[in-house]
Amino acid sequence: MLLLLRRVVAPGLRQACRLKSTPARLCVRACCTNDPLQPRRSSFTSSGGDSSTRRWRVVGTLLGLGAALACHDQQCRASQESPRRYTREEVKSHSSPETGVWVTLGCEVFDITEFVDIHPGGASKLMLAAGGPLEPFWALYAVHNQPHVREMLAEYKIGELSPEDKAPSTLKTSDPYVDDPTRHSALKVNTQRPFNAEPPPELLTESYITPNPIFFTRNHLPVPNVDPDTYRLHVAGPPGGQALCLSLDDLYQFPRHEVTVTLQCAGNRRSEMSQFKEVRGLEWSLGAISTARWAGARLCDVLAQAGHQLCETEAHVCFEGLDSDPTGTPYGASIPLARAMDPEAEVLLAYEMNGQPLPRDHGFPVRVVVPGVVGARHVKWLGKVSVEPEESFSHWQRRDYKGFSPSVDWDTVDFDSAPSIQELPVQSAITQPKEGETIEAGEVTVRGYAWSGGGRAVVRVDVSLDGGLTWQVAELEGEEQRARKAWAWRLWHLQVPLPAGKKELNIVCKAVDDSYNVQPDTVAPIWNLRGVLNNAWHRVHVHVTP
Amino acid sequence: MLLLLRRVVAPGLRQACRLKSTPARLCVRACCTNDPLQPRRSSFTSSGGDSSTRRWRVVGTLLGLGAALACHDQQCRASQESPRRYTREEVKSHSSPETGVWVTLGCEVFDITEFVDIHPGGASKLMLAAGGPLEPFWALYAVHNQPHVREMLAEYKIGELSPEDKAPSTLKTSDPYVDDPTRHSALKVNTQRPFNAEPPPELLTESYITPNPIFFTRNHLPVPNVDPDTYRLHVAGPPGGQALCLSLDDLYQFPRHEVTVTLQCAGNRRSEMSQFKEVRGLEWSLGAISTARWAGARLCDVLAQAGHQLCETEAHVCFEGLDSDPTGTPYGASIPLARAMDPEAEVLLAYEMNGQPLPRDHGFPVRVVVPGVVGARHVKWLGKVSVEPEESFSHWQRRDYKGFSPSVDWDTVDFDSAPSIQELPVQSAITQPKEGETIEAGEVTVRGYAWSGGGRAVVRVDVSLDGGLTWQVAELEGEEQRARKAWAWRLWHLQVPLPAGKKELNIVCKAVDDSYNVQPDTVAPIWNLRGVLNNAWHRVHVHVTP
Repeated sequence: MLLLLRRVVAPGLRQACRLKSTPARLCVRACCTNDPLQPRRSSFTSSGGDSSTRRWRVVGTLLGLGAALACHDQQCRASQESPRRYTREEVKSHSSPETGVWVTLGCEVFDITEFVDIHPGGASKLMLAAGGPLEPFWALYAVHNQPHVREMLAEYKIGELSPEDKAPSTLKTSDPYVDDPTRHSALKVNTQRPFNAEPPPELLTESYITPNPIFFTRNHLPVPNVDPDTYRLHVAGPPGGQALCLSLDDLYQFPRHEVTVTLQCAGNRRSEMSQFKEVRGLEWSLGAISTARWAGARLCDVLAQAGHQLCETEAHVCFEGLDSDPTGTPYGASIPLARAMDPEAEVLLAYEMNGQPLPRDHGFPVRVVVPGVVGARHVKWLGKVSVEPEESFSHWQRRDYKGFSPSVDWDTVDFDSAPSIQELPVQSAITQPKEGETIEAGEVTVRGYAWSGGGRAVVRVDVSLDGGLTWQVAELEGEEQRARKAWAWRLWHLQVPLPAGKKELNIVCKAVDDSYNVQPDTVAPIWNLRGVLNNAWHRVHVHVTP
Repeated sequence: MLLLLRRVVAPGLRQACRLKSTPARLCVRACCTNDPLQPRRSSFTSSGGDSSTRRWRVVGTLLGLGAALACHDQQCRASQESPRRYTREEVKSHSSPETGVWVTLGCEVFDITEFVDIHPGGASKLMLAAGGPLEPFWALYAVHNQPHVREMLAEYKIGELSPEDKAPSTLKTSDPYVDDPTRHSALKVNTQRPFNAEPPPELLTESYITPNPIFFTRNHLPVPNVDPDTYRLHVAGPPGGQALCLSLDDLYQFPRHEVTVTLQCAGNRRSEMSQFKEVRGLEWSLGAISTARWAGARLCDVLAQAGHQLCETEAHVCFEGLDSDPTGTPYGASIPLARAMDPEAEVLLAYEMNGQPLPRDHGFPVRVVVPGVVGARHVKWLGKVSVEPEESFSHWQRRDYKGFSPSVDWDTVDFDSAPSIQELPVQSAITQPKEGETIEAGEVTVRGYAWSGGGRAVVRVDVSLDGGLTWQVAELEGEEQRARKAWAWRLWHLQVPLPAGKKELNIVCKAVDDSYNVQPDTVAPIWNLRGVLNNAWHRVHVHVTP
C-alpha cells in the first residue's frame, strides 16, 4: 500500500477548494491552486497496492493557515462512530510489525503499521515510539508539530485511551532544547528545534570568511552542553592496539594544523528544488554554506597515535557526536579511511573556528572538519572515533544524505542502492541582486559564491543576464586556491553596463571546476526525493527601473 | 585587426548565395542556409580593428564542393592587376613580426603578418614556415589542403615568385606519413594525415575492453617507426642527481603493474558541439573513447629510481614523444608531479595493451597512461621524461586542450587564462540505437557507456525516452569500480517496453559520478572555441515502426 503525499508550500496561494466530509477532518478529492504570479507545480500520483478495498488518495496543500488535506474513505466513516477504548497495556503490546504498531498522542490511539516504512525520518526512528506515546519524540523533532502532520496521523486513528488510563506518560517530556544557545538575530531560521538557520544572502558574501555568529547552522538534535574540563574524546584502537581517551589538553599536544574550509549542507538550495516538486527536508535557500578558518589536530595524526594504519581493504572512520536523541542514539557519520589517513586531505579534529573556541552551535569543544566533503560528515560535539570495516550505521549515513534519480520516490526508494554523499559537485549562486529586486538602470553588479567538492578549484564563473543565451566571465575574488586542495570557496562579481531600455534581467550563474565539471542547466532532471545536491544554474529575476 | 571565420559544414545544404567579384575568387557579403530538416546555426560576428580602410567581413560556408568564402575589398581590387614579383631571398628576409611574415605556396607569395596571431594551430607553429614555402608543413598537417583554407590564404596574396626563382624548394616535401601502419577497416576515419579515427558506436560498447585494432586513435603527427632494440627512454635526474637511459629490458625490470583504464580525447563528441556553432577541431562523433588493460612500469617507481621526490612546491612531469614535426619539435605534454609520484594514481609507462606489445598507433614501444586524465597527456612513443617547475611548454599543453567560456572566441581568447585540461568531467553516451534509426515497436534496448575523470566512479545512469521529461535508471554492466580508482568506464543498458502507438523516441542519457557531479542538459552553454569537453546529455532521435 502506497501513500504518496505531495505538499505544496505556496505563500501566495490565493485559492483552494476543499470538500469537508466530517467536522473533525478534511477529506479532499481535488485541490487546485491558482496564482499566476507565482506558478508552482504540484504533482499527484495515484497509489497502487494489493488491497483494492483501501484506496488512499492524498493531496496536500499547506496554506498559510496550515491546513493539510488527507482522506481515507474507510476510516472517514469509522470516525463518525463513538471511539473504541484501549488501555496503555494494550497499546504497549503493539510494538512490532508482527503485532502491529500502535502509538498514542494525547488520549488518541493510532495503528501506524502501514506508515512505518514510509516514515520520512526512517522506519527505525519511528519504531522507537512503537507501543507508547509520541510526545517525547515530537518534542525532539519539532517538525512534527504541524497541522498537516497531525491530520495525516488522524487517518490512522483506531480509538482512544480508556478514561482511567489517560494519566500522563512517565516518559520525560520536558523540552530538550531548553539549553540551546542564543543565536544571532540576522540568521534566517529554518527550524528552531533542532536549530537550523542560514545567513541572509547579502551578508553571506560580504566577507570571504563567514563570521562565526552568522555561519550557517545545521543541527539534527539538541545542542549538548559539554564541560571542557571533563570532556574526553574516545579513539578506538586497532585490534590488539590501545584505545585513546583524550582530554582537550591532550588534543592540543598534537601538531596544530590550520586550514580554511567551506562547509556546505547537502540540502543547500533545496527550496528551489521543492518549487519544482515537493521534497522532504529543510527549506534551505542559498545560505546553507559558509567558510571558516579551522584549527585543530589532524585526524591522521590522532589515528596514527592510536596505532591505525592505512590498510589494503576498504575501511571507514566512524564518528559519533555527543548530541543524542531520547533513547541515547547519537548523531553519527563516517568517511573512508583513505581520506582520513591522507595528510594531504587535511581532515581535522577542530577546536578553533576563526581564532575562537568553537561556538556551541558549531560543535564545542571539538568537531570533525572534512575538507571538500558534505557538511553532514563534519560531526560536531565529537565523542568517539573508530575505524570500522563498514560505513557508520547511523541513520544519517545510511538512510539520508544520498542522491537518487528523479524517477525514485518514497514508495520505490532503496537507500542501499546509492552511495552516501561525500564529495559534493560544483556549485555557485548569486547573492546580489536578490530575486524580485528592482535595480537601477545603467549598470548592474552581480555577486555570488562558487565552490566545488574534493578540493577541486573553481576555474571560472559564467554569468548571463538573459537567462543563459549569452555569457560573461565573472571576476574571481579572494584567496587563490591551492592545487588539489581548493577547500574554500571563491567569491566573485561581475559589474556590467545594462543595455538601455532593459526592463528586466534573468540573471544566471554557473561555475566550472578544474576537472571541468559544470553545473546542470535545470533543476527538474536532478530532482530527488530528499532535495539534496541542487547545483543547477542559479537564477535570479530582477526588474530594472525605467 | 580581427578575422572571424565561421564555417558551417552542412551536408543538407540546399541554398547558398554568392556574389562573385573576380574570376579567381569568391567575394561574398551574405550567405544563407536553409534546411528545415537539419537546422544548424551559423553565427556572424562583425570584425573590429584599428584600420578603418580595411574591412574584412568573412562568412564561410563549406559546401560539398568545398567553397569557402572570403572578401577583402582592397586585395580583391589588387588581384585584378598583374602580380608583383619577388625573389626567394626577398621572401626569406620577411620572417619576423618586425619585417613582416611572408610565405610561399607554389609560385604565389603571401604576406600573412596579420594572420599569424589568429592561426588556429598557434602562432609559433605558423612561424616555423615564415620566410619560406608552406608545402612541407601542409604535407604534415593535411587539414590545410582544403579549398576554404586556400581561399582564406588568397586574401593575403601580395604577388608571385620571380619566374627564374620558381625551382622547387630544397626542403624535403616527401610524405612523412608514408610509413604509418595499416589500420582496421572498421575504423571511422576522421583524418588520414595525421591519422585520427574512432570505432563505430555499434562496436564500441560490444565489449568492456576495446580490442586494440579498433581502439580510437588520436595522432598529432606521423607515427614514428621505433626499433625496440635501440629504443631508449631518457629520464632526467633531479639537480645533482643522475639521469637514466632505459632500454626496454631495463623498463621490464621495474615491478610490472597492470590497470584497466579508459582513455578519452578532450574532443570526444565535438561534432555535436559544432552543430550548435562552428568549432576548430576534428569532428569526433562519440567514439573518441576506448578502454584497455595496460601493463608497464609505474612512473613513480621510475622517477624514484632517478632520485626524484615529491616536493612542497608545485612541479610537473614533462613528457616528450618521438613523433615530431619537420623542425624536430616533438609532441609534448605534462602532468602535476603530485599525481606522477602518487602510487595510488597508478600512472604507467606502459609497454603492453590488452596483453600485446603496444600497437604502433598507440605508442610502440612505450607510452604514458595517466588514469582519469584526458588522453592528450598519455604521451605516445615516449622519448623523454623530466621534472620541471612549470608545465610543458608544448603547444598542446599551453595553446590547446583548454576550456573557455562560450563568450570567448578566437579574437578574444587568452590561453594563459585557463588551466590545461587534466581530469575530465562526467560523461556518457548512447551507442544503441543510433541517431535516425527506425526501431521495432514493442520494446527498446538502449546501450551506452559512462565514465568520469579523476577516478570517480559512475554511480548511476539515467535514461529518458521523452527528451528528458521522465527518467529510468539504466543497469550498469561490467566490472565493479574501485573506490577513488574508477579508471575504467561502465557499460550500461536499459531494456523497456514502449507505450503502444509511440511513433518516435527522443532518447537521452546522463550519468552521475560519486562526487554527484552530473552532465549539463544542453551543449550551447558549454560551447567553446576548440570544441572540447562536450559532456552535455547525449540525445538520440529514433523512429518506431507502426
